[in-house]
Amino acid sequence: MRSDRLGETLLPKKLALPVFASDALSSVAYAPDEILLTLGLAGGALAVTRSWPVALAVVAVMVVVVASYRQNVHAYPSGGGDYEVASTNLGPKAGLTVASALLVDYVLTVAVSISSGVQNAAAAFSWIRGHEVLAALVLIAALTGMNLRGVRESGKAFAIPTYLFMLTVVGMALVGLVRRTAGTLPPAESADLTLAPEPGMEQLGTLAMAFLLLRAFSSGCAALTGVEAISNGVPAFRKPKSANAATTLLLMGAIAVTMLLSMIALATWTGVKVAEDPGQQLLRDGVPVGDGYVQHTVMAQVAMSVFDGFPAGVVLVSVVTGLILVLAANTAFNGFPVLGSILARDGYLPRQLHTRGDRLAFSNGIILLAASAALLIVIYDAQVTKLIQLYIVGVFVSFTLSQIGMVRHWNRHLAVDKDVPEQRRMMRCRAINAVGAAMSGTVLVVVVLTKFTHGAGFAMAAMAGLFLLMGAISRHYRHVSQELAVPEGDTKHQMLPSRVHAIVLVSTIHRPTLRALAYASATRPSRLEAITVEVDHDATRALQGEWDRRGIPIPLKALDSPYREITRPVVDYVKSIRSGNPRDLVVVYIPQYVLGHWWEQALHNQSALRLRSRLLFTPGVMVSSVPWQLASSEGAEERMDGPVAGDVRRGGA
Amino acid sequence: MRSDRLGETLLPKKLALPVFASDALSSVAYAPDEILLTLGLAGGALAVTRSWPVALAVVAVMVVVVASYRQNVHAYPSGGGDYEVASTNLGPKAGLTVASALLVDYVLTVAVSISSGVQNAAAAFSWIRGHEVLAALVLIAALTGMNLRGVRESGKAFAIPTYLFMLTVVGMALVGLVRRTAGTLPPAESADLTLAPEPGMEQLGTLAMAFLLLRAFSSGCAALTGVEAISNGVPAFRKPKSANAATTLLLMGAIAVTMLLSMIALATWTGVKVAEDPGQQLLRDGVPVGDGYVQHTVMAQVAMSVFDGFPAGVVLVSVVTGLILVLAANTAFNGFPVLGSILARDGYLPRQLHTRGDRLAFSNGIILLAASAALLIVIYDAQVTKLIQLYIVGVFVSFTLSQIGMVRHWNRHLAVDKDVPEQRRMMRCRAINAVGAAMSGTVLVVVVLTKFTHGAGFAMAAMAGLFLLMGAISRHYRHVSQELAVPEGDTKHQMLPSRVHAIVLVSTIHRPTLRALAYASATRPSRLEAITVEVDHDATRALQGEWDRRGIPIPLKALDSPYREITRPVVDYVKSIRSGNPRDLVVVYIPQYVLGHWWEQALHNQSALRLRSRLLFTPGVMVSSVPWQLASSEGAEERMDGPVAGDVRRGGA
Repeated sequence: MRSDRLGETLLPKKLALPVFASDALSSVAYAPDEILLTLGLAGGALAVTRSWPVALAVVAVMVVVVASYRQNVHAYPSGGGDYEVASTNLGPKAGLTVASALLVDYVLTVAVSISSGVQNAAAAFSWIRGHEVLAALVLIAALTGMNLRGVRESGKAFAIPTYLFMLTVVGMALVGLVRRTAGTLPPAESADLTLAPEPGMEQLGTLAMAFLLLRAFSSGCAALTGVEAISNGVPAFRKPKSANAATTLLLMGAIAVTMLLSMIALATWTGVKVAEDPGQQLLRDGVPVGDGYVQHTVMAQVAMSVFDGFPAGVVLVSVVTGLILVLAANTAFNGFPVLGSILARDGYLPRQLHTRGDRLAFSNGIILLAASAALLIVIYDAQVTKLIQLYIVGVFVSFTLSQIGMVRHWNRHLAVDKDVPEQRRMMRCRAINAVGAAMSGTVLVVVVLTKFTHGAGFAMAAMAGLFLLMGAISRHYRHVSQELAVPEGDTKHQMLPSRVHAIVLVSTIHRPTLRALAYASATRPSRLEAITVEVDHDATRALQGEWDRRGIPIPLKALDSPYREITRPVVDYVKSIRSGNPRDLVVVYIPQYVLGHWWEQALHNQSALRLRSRLLFTPGVMVSSVPWQLASSEGAEERMDGPVAGDVRRGGA
Repeated sequence: MRSDRLGETLLPKKLALPVFASDALSSVAYAPDEILLTLGLAGGALAVTRSWPVALAVVAVMVVVVASYRQNVHAYPSGGGDYEVASTNLGPKAGLTVASALLVDYVLTVAVSISSGVQNAAAAFSWIRGHEVLAALVLIAALTGMNLRGVRESGKAFAIPTYLFMLTVVGMALVGLVRRTAGTLPPAESADLTLAPEPGMEQLGTLAMAFLLLRAFSSGCAALTGVEAISNGVPAFRKPKSANAATTLLLMGAIAVTMLLSMIALATWTGVKVAEDPGQQLLRDGVPVGDGYVQHTVMAQVAMSVFDGFPAGVVLVSVVTGLILVLAANTAFNGFPVLGSILARDGYLPRQLHTRGDRLAFSNGIILLAASAALLIVIYDAQVTKLIQLYIVGVFVSFTLSQIGMVRHWNRHLAVDKDVPEQRRMMRCRAINAVGAAMSGTVLVVVVLTKFTHGAGFAMAAMAGLFLLMGAISRHYRHVSQELAVPEGDTKHQMLPSRVHAIVLVSTIHRPTLRALAYASATRPSRLEAITVEVDHDATRALQGEWDRRGIPIPLKALDSPYREITRPVVDYVKSIRSGNPRDLVVVYIPQYVLGHWWEQALHNQSALRLRSRLLFTPGVMVSSVPWQLASSEGAEERMDGPVAGDVRRGGA
């Protein structure tokens, strides 16, 4: 698809929901597990009695956050999301903090979603067990490859698995409810096990108990990751953009809450028991089940109970859950370029990320994202429970700053707009955002307190590192632009060089060489010569012989190179010309051949490229590439325009 | 060090030995383990009775191979090694087979050595246990970083650990011998365990038993990997090169044999028991020791016995062994560019690998090597026993083809040289190489038969893949050079373009822009204009205003770009000029700024680079870079000349 048709790809609500919600909805595949197993650290009783209150607390936060973001979507429809809200209202430092948090979160979205996807898929495909890290790395490599090739995110490709996932979870809840009512719902495979507390957690004081509940709540808040995605994607919606985005956000919140509560209900009914350390904590008849015990995810255990006697149902749940988690990971691959482009525009990331179609820059970003996620997966052994500890802090940093920013936004507007009904509306909005800010801030404090030593500290260190890096990039750009500026009235730099000395680089006599000689002659330089580097004495003599035989009317000079180097002798020769005639301009013509595929290009022209990069360091020298198009280059230039990851989210230019 | 001083770095024998032998000698750290645990598959009795015969068989092969390679070193002193011998005497297909085998072997040298290094180091640093993969990946990353930066291999840096390793192993053998004679040598920590056969291996028939012995022998042949290194490194020796290399080879063989036999003796004396599956196979009082059992390497277990009561000795062995294995891995990083350069010269690998100082090409090779090794380590969980199954097939493919090639070599010379004493000498040499060929060929068949399903098949598939890839690269180069060739007497391509149309690309008015305008004017084109791409209407108007105010005497034209793209509008404009005047030459001048560090460069000039790569596809267009040197570029060009991995082995240009 050509870039000038981007405008036609705006999303209707029914496609925007799956594109933007897969990340948020997919967390229902791991959030219940994390709530249950964190509570289970203090034994099975707590997991049974406290999972409901904790889940309801998470739902309460979800309701407030969704309500708050509906304000953001209306007030900032440009797709800048939390970064823009924080930058505009709280200043560039706050914006940069949000940006760092979001970048870290993209990495963790990939790591957590893929790890959970592998764990869920392992319920259907048991050969994955024992090779989870490898499976996760293969999936990341596949996503990376897909996004490097520039496969366009397709609303329809998202729609089928996402809607299927919603249907599956809700359907499973309904079947579960019916079977429970009928008294035919079998217990989960782990229902007859006892869940022993971790050593040291047998008897908890009130404070330690409160702390554990808060930790479970923090883990459960993983269900909120991805809620902000819609606020970054308003430009991709059909008109009226903000209203449609707000409706979609509401819909997503409602579905997420329904699914989370369904899963908790099903887990309670079937008596699922999950533990952080299943081999030791789970007891059968008082004896630990041992390391051989395979702990399925809550989703898989519930499916096995609900669809007892209908194995295809279990496979369906497992496959669909795995799929939606891979889609959620892909979300990060598509969201990253959008954020990267905005940060590049503001000079915080390499500028080329801002120009649409710089495939190389985006590719580097995608590779960096994938490599960081892969590293985390190797370090944390693809274990969701460990990775999740790092995950939530970034999300809530960005929630909190964004909501505080929104409160400031309303304050500013209230000071200006004196229309009474409008003032009343803005005060209502401000109240919602204030509640959102307070709630997110509280959760952030809870997350930091309960998770700091479990990994959140590491995530915060990464955020700090990115913050400093982006600050340094921004300072670098400012510094360079000062150095390049021309004072008004300065004409010195417009001085013309007195003479032009042209040099054509020759390695052998072939079509590109002859073209370079012709083009160099066409520019009518003051002096024109061909030079070759003598790496092999016989080869140079043969070249000179052919040169004379063909009667080429330009002198050919051979430069010595005792150490088989091409670059050094040419650079030294050019420098010697310059130092003899400092007001002359030296133009070096380098024949270069153009092929159609990147792997062909990689096999050629490398010494030309290296030579150019060296010659650029000498003032008064200009390097001209004289291209020769080989047959395979035909049509290749047109092929270079392709879709880029993030196009759909961006909603066109 | 500058490249023109390479010649001064030739190695005396006492430094050449550690540089080239660390790979071969380090295998004593894992070869005994592999012999013992393979035999142990059929129970402890076999491991005790058969380890000596198997080890002696390995020694016999070692003696023959060393004797054979002494011939190679004299006959082919150019450093082409097995590849050159096979290519010259058996044709390019054989050469390419050897090259593929060696490339696969470099990857496996890294994977096996690092994995074994980590296992050995874990004896002293027990916190490594459970994180072997991570530790191995960190080590690979460190080696990669070191070699990317171009740290020169230093004979001295190799000498200390290598000699220390030899001393440690031989010293340990002597102390062990003394203590055994005195009756004070304590048994190994695993001596009181019983080694149960693997299920299904309790009662082996004669054939199955012979097969197991051959498998153990194949694994033991890992001790031979790296023997060929000296034959690739003859140019790095001081004169008389071949004689010195042959002596060093003999010395290395003697030391390797001594160390291998010492280790087998020590293992027998102390009663070390190692198993492929220690948790199940090792029994204490008839009960499996379970997965919690930590199986130390033979080296570590022997050290713990010999240096019983002297823990510093154990730590020394562990550290020195770990170190020599890391050096062995580094060998591959340095050997790879040397082989790569020769293969590139012959057109089988990207040509830039042949030109000294193409840091980028070498860097890509080093990264590819490291990534492949890292992948293997992740797949095989850093387990030496699994990786070793892939290792030996490549070595023996290259041994066998090289020795067959040597036999042909002597046949050819015997047919020409009729001098009787010389004939007699050559026939003696031929006999040695024939025995070498027969012996290596037999081992190769044994290795393929016993290991094919254990991983050797995978290594062979990788070799086949490389073989096909290098064949394709070679065909590509031949095809391109045919397409570029100019028939004698053809003058069409020397036709001069009639007029020159110069275009200067402007984004803003700064020093580089003014310089580009001045240089373009200096070439006195038929027509000169400046163009800018209008991404933002206001910015373009501001630019045009400043242009007029400063009175720049060149017309500025703005090109429309509705989709925030720079490249497309410029390419289309240039094409439109060309199609109007097909005999004109269009020169596009692109201002470019030059900074001192690669990370600074990465932040700039990217749209210029992209534009150039696009414009090259249009015939009749030439792209000129007009560099502006920023302050940070001062002195950077000189810094670009640095050492390259493999310099020492190459022995200068």
